[in-house]
Amino acid sequence: MRWDQTNYPHDPSHLPTAPIAPSGFINQEDYWERQQPLTFVLIHGSWADSSFWNGIANELRKKGHTVYTPEYPGHGADPNKDVSHSMMTKSIADFIISKNLHNVILLGHSFGGTLVQKVAELVPDRLKRLVFLNAFVLNDGQNLGDELPAPVRNVFVGLAQNSKDNTIMLPFPLYRDAFANLASLELVQQMYNEISPEPAKPLLENLNLKKFYSLNIPKSYIYLTVDNALPQGEGFGWHPHMSSRLGLFRLIKGHGDHMSTVKTEPKMLAQKIYEASRD
Amino acid sequence: MRWDQTNYPHDPSHLPTAPIAPSGFINQEDYWERQQPLTFVLIHGSWADSSFWNGIANELRKKGHTVYTPEYPGHGADPNKDVSHSMMTKSIADFIISKNLHNVILLGHSFGGTLVQKVAELVPDRLKRLVFLNAFVLNDGQNLGDELPAPVRNVFVGLAQNSKDNTIMLPFPLYRDAFANLASLELVQQMYNEISPEPAKPLLENLNLKKFYSLNIPKSYIYLTVDNALPQGEGFGWHPHMSSRLGLFRLIKGHGDHMSTVKTEPKMLAQKIYEASRD
Amino acid sequence: MRWDQTNYPHDPSHLPTAPIAPSGFINQEDYWERQQPLTFVLIHGSWADSSFWNGIANELRKKGHTVYTPEYPGHGADPNKDVSHSMMTKSIADFIISKNLHNVILLGHSFGGTLVQKVAELVPDRLKRLVFLNAFVLNDGQNLGDELPAPVRNVFVGLAQNSKDNTIMLPFPLYRDAFANLASLELVQQMYNEISPEPAKPLLENLNLKKFYSLNIPKSYIYLTVDNALPQGEGFGWHPHMSSRLGLFRLIKGHGDHMSTVKTEPKMLAQKIYEASRD
Repeated sequence: MRWDQTNYPHDPSHLPTAPIAPSGFINQEDYWERQQPLTFVLIHGSWADSSFWNGIANELRKKGHTVYTPEYPGHGADPNKDVSHSMMTKSIADFIISKNLHNVILLGHSFGGTLVQKVAELVPDRLKRLVFLNAFVLNDGQNLGDELPAPVRNVFVGLAQNSKDNTIMLPFPLYRDAFANLASLELVQQMYNEISPEPAKPLLENLNLKKFYSLNIPKSYIYLTVDNALPQGEGFGWHPHMSSRLGLFRLIKGHGDHMSTVKTEPKMLAQKIYEASRD
Repeated sequence: MRWDQTNYPHDPSHLPTAPIAPSGFINQEDYWERQQPLTFVLIHGSWADSSFWNGIANELRKKGHTVYTPEYPGHGADPNKDVSHSMMTKSIADFIISKNLHNVILLGHSFGGTLVQKVAELVPDRLKRLVFLNAFVLNDGQNLGDELPAPVRNVFVGLAQNSKDNTIMLPFPLYRDAFANLASLELVQQMYNEISPEPAKPLLENLNLKKFYSLNIPKSYIYLTVDNALPQGEGFGWHPHMSSRLGLFRLIKGHGDHMSTVKTEPKMLAQKIYEASRD
Repeated sequence: MRWDQTNYPHDPSHLPTAPIAPSGFINQEDYWERQQPLTFVLIHGSWADSSFWNGIANELRKKGHTVYTPEYPGHGADPNKDVSHSMMTKSIADFIISKNLHNVILLGHSFGGTLVQKVAELVPDRLKRLVFLNAFVLNDGQNLGDELPAPVRNVFVGLAQNSKDNTIMLPFPLYRDAFANLASLELVQQMYNEISPEPAKPLLENLNLKKFYSLNIPKSYIYLTVDNALPQGEGFGWHPHMSSRLGLFRLIKGHGDHMSTVKTEPKMLAQKIYEASRD
């Protein structure tokens, strides 16, 4: 829903009705106990696989939600690193169709934001809301690399060129200080030992996003404010730089970094995700 | 007090003295129990009436403060929506004079910031400090619409033109996601059912603010950081974009959105307001 | 370590090993009890002396760290206010050498950031990491005054010119609202009564920082988000405006102002400093 495409209903009878009998309980704790059941499809980012979501999925399921964390090509057990962006988005769209999912909350983290954008073009009628968690929101025709300052992009391109298979492995000092800044060294080492080199091609493909920007699906952006994986401010960064491209969106904020807070505070993040996703 | 108009006293004997015997207690809890008694005049914003302040006023009164929440033309029980900005500010200034108030902490929320600016011009000698709570601070000659990105301003102007009486009713999806993003749907529906269309004219009147920018009244800005009613950053937003126009000001921050946090966390906000207002 | 100078190791055997047996404990509380012992040299800013660090140094020592808070010329008991920036940095470098310190975490607050930059040039081999706490990070050839908006700089220059000895005394209203905005009036008065006029010359000296920008020492920036001593955003401010000059750095954030949070929340700040400083 974009500001300049909005055709709002004026008749209050069009209002959504509350999912739970609203006998006046405003108490947040009470409300938390009885959440509106939602169906989540969670899309991880680069240097991760679907186990990225284990803690958060577990917390969401405890509250009665249905949670899917589909793996996509080039990640997890897939030995093939020669993948394209459209292979990834087709795989996710196929997953949603094969499971016959409807009213989906489609959430992407980091690079997963670009997958959410393209999957939304493929199966818009299956989606209830798009949620971006410190995720890329690209303009039409852009690639992810366009959102990196030149020195950072050059580091990544150089790492890909020096690899045997056009992949990028994050150097440990970069991962530790810029991606997992809030974690203890022990945790960062555990996390780092589990990641694989990331296929470079999908990060540098220009994406046609004209249809995405014509879709009328509600959107939310969750901004964890201590994420320094992207430089913040002055023409770069998650919020407000990329979030503002969504037009009208629901903003949720929390204290967290790019990679480690999903491990250390899954309950807090599950609550933020619910607040971003409920009606 | 602006940076370039400042004539600071160098003689420490000019220092304000503490309102309470300062026998060395730095303990915040202890201090909170014995607050410096203040006189507040709280000015609500658009799509609200003076009941907006009920929870906060109650919390402030518990701490010994005197709190006024005057209604202004076009709002509350007033059936007349054909009002001007100067009718509103005159009404508030008259209220302050009729109650013979002095040393007033004049606080405005949202559109109420523009009322604080003009009331300060009318009764500067009655005011101890101006406090802006996620409030507009306009430049001389501006109107509120100038602070909205073009697509948002066009939505508002269109809504006014389509109304029978030059008023703007916020569409529910916009209110829910951009004005009350942190609240449960039940609470947002309760709040939405209580609001009335807002007179459009005062939002689009250019204001002469030359006198405001010559006044030497201390100022504070309270920024609730999850407010997304205005786009944040890149030339728009509450803080630092508009707050910085105040020159020297006291900054206070908290976690909250534009409309619902006054309902869900009145005690927290009353504390922030006190911290912004004390000597 | 700058993005464009980075030569990262790809071999995981080069990874640092955890300082404490990592038998899988991710629990933050548990970890906090057994911190990696570090050696800190803490450099205060303007309108302060080494007692600025008393509370924080005490908290860090409780956790087993070694903490030094050297005084530098023009501050503390030094009656001579006619000092230069290089006198200050030489004094700190001499202190580090005389104590035979190695693997130092060198941390600067505010103006102390410029001292950290130059001390790093003098004794780079002694330093394990540089930490900036709401501190200036100047570009090569800049002086601190270049980071102040013109009206603020003019106020400071005027205060220096009106002094007998080229010093600047912060006016109380400025100190109260912009430097200690979160504190009670009693605490601000206590703090203000203890400060001395600041030598103006080192604040306006252009610094040659070419060597600093060639050094490959890890860096962190701690940003206390309610600090309003510098205007925030739109081309000014601590983070991301000055922090981004560090290239790759570890970001830590907390709730605090420029001068009073060290007094009111030393334990919280000691924890933030540890998170910024550990491997």
